[in-house]
Amino acid sequence: MSDPTYTPPKVWTWEQPSGGQFANINRPVSGATHEKDRPVGKHPLQLYSLATPNGVKVTVMLEELLALGYKGAEYDAWLIKINEGDQFSSGFVEANPNSKIPALVDHSTETPTRVFESGSILLYLAEKFGEFLPKDPAKRTETLNWLFWQMGSAPYLGGGFGHFYAYAPEKYQYPIDRFAMEAKRQLDVLDKALAERPYIAGDDYTIADMAIFPWYGGMVLGRAYDAAEFLSVHEYKNLLAWAEKVDARPAVGRGRKVNRTWGEDHEQLPERHDAADLDAKVALDPAAE
Amino acid sequence: MSDPTYTPPKVWTWEQPSGGQFANINRPVSGATHEKDRPVGKHPLQLYSLATPNGVKVTVMLEELLALGYKGAEYDAWLIKINEGDQFSSGFVEANPNSKIPALVDHSTETPTRVFESGSILLYLAEKFGEFLPKDPAKRTETLNWLFWQMGSAPYLGGGFGHFYAYAPEKYQYPIDRFAMEAKRQLDVLDKALAERPYIAGDDYTIADMAIFPWYGGMVLGRAYDAAEFLSVHEYKNLLAWAEKVDARPAVGRGRKVNRTWGEDHEQLPERHDAADLDAKVALDPAAE
Repeated sequence: MSDPTYTPPKVWTWEQPSGGQFANINRPVSGATHEKDRPVGKHPLQLYSLATPNGVKVTVMLEELLALGYKGAEYDAWLIKINEGDQFSSGFVEANPNSKIPALVDHSTETPTRVFESGSILLYLAEKFGEFLPKDPAKRTETLNWLFWQMGSAPYLGGGFGHFYAYAPEKYQYPIDRFAMEAKRQLDVLDKALAERPYIAGDDYTIADMAIFPWYGGMVLGRAYDAAEFLSVHEYKNLLAWAEKVDARPAVGRGRKVNRTWGEDHEQLPERHDAADLDAKVALDPAAE
Repeated sequence: MSDPTYTPPKVWTWEQPSGGQFANINRPVSGATHEKDRPVGKHPLQLYSLATPNGVKVTVMLEELLALGYKGAEYDAWLIKINEGDQFSSGFVEANPNSKIPALVDHSTETPTRVFESGSILLYLAEKFGEFLPKDPAKRTETLNWLFWQMGSAPYLGGGFGHFYAYAPEKYQYPIDRFAMEAKRQLDVLDKALAERPYIAGDDYTIADMAIFPWYGGMVLGRAYDAAEFLSVHEYKNLLAWAEKVDARPAVGRGRKVNRTWGEDHEQLPERHDAADLDAKVALDPAAE
């Protein structure tokens, strides 16, 4: 990297260790590294996750469904410690061959249904319960446009900007410039859309908001990569107003605590097996009413 | 980049030009740069695209639907010259505020419906015509799992590996190593899945195959980034067998030519407004029967 005359070899080979923080969880091969079954609790929905932005999308959705009174949305949330390789257990790989959190298994179907990729899980739950995805065809399409937008865009924010700005072993200018530019473009796309509408896909709060909030809302709220000043996130006023509105939803506050193992005590609930688990944490929260 | 002591500034600012090939199409802001309406042809579906992997997904889907006899899938395919900034016209931005190809506008609905993000377009067309997305709930979910997998994974292959291996102004070792490792992991995920099933989501050829083929099929078929040897793509035998099977479909051959402005004469059809446009190109193809 510091040698401008670097020439790639003819054939790439893996030299461990490399990659800075999280290097130990990146591999050039897929599949299980050890035999271990998935734990299964008492509820219809079994979630295997961690409170990263992709994980939070799903716990927020489940808490929103529970807030509406859907008993079928009760869930066990099991902690996947990605720095310890839990995502490479045979049981996890069976639920998600891509070894990334979150993974959901629905035990209410005839045979258990595996659902992986956070966007797929949001769509699955929206269709299962008939909520947070408009039934009007034009509104439904616009919601899915933005849901897919988030899935295709956030890798540049997380695996691109976040990695090179916060996690890489050294600060390299070229990739930081490249991904900072793209991160700002994406923030501006959202800011312009939210100038015209209260929620990202229109008048309704949908799974598109839930997908976008943990990544882009987290960014403008100053929660991601310590990069608020670097990216001048105060410029995105419509996005910030939307993020504050979404952040104030009780289900969002609850969902953000689940499978979380960092922060203040009241912010973290490593595993959730009952609504009361979360109620106890919410009661400790100085911001809670 | 060549200075290992680089320290990012407090606030990132844009310094043009930078970014190597395609640098002129990357900006830190969104929105239109010039006023220009979208052209609209005679068919129900108006596609604004270019034959990149994301563009090819949609033209293949449309050709597959036409091969099944769906007249409602007739389309005009307009060329978006991304190196000349066509994606920043007011008309394109109206169809896709993210300024990326492909964008589809359906004029068969009460008011025209915009559909953007290639995954959203595939899902929209699959649901509109009731094809290439299984109706069985478990199979449908598995198809959507892989469709979303492709959307969230390919940015590491294209914007990550492809950019740093093929397009960046210099060869930088750290990002090449990082993204080569991830590209190989993704190829292995697909290879293992295809060891157990004929198509990526099971027994049926679906929109998940159409989404994955142009990126990962193109890679193992040696069509992408001149990187087949570097990534040892011959290792992925199941993926290669699947890619050859998909590549042999007539609709795939047709779809790959649409909005294409490079390659042999018989391979490129910059705009498509009638099936006969494409028939003429197919007739020129030495590989055609």
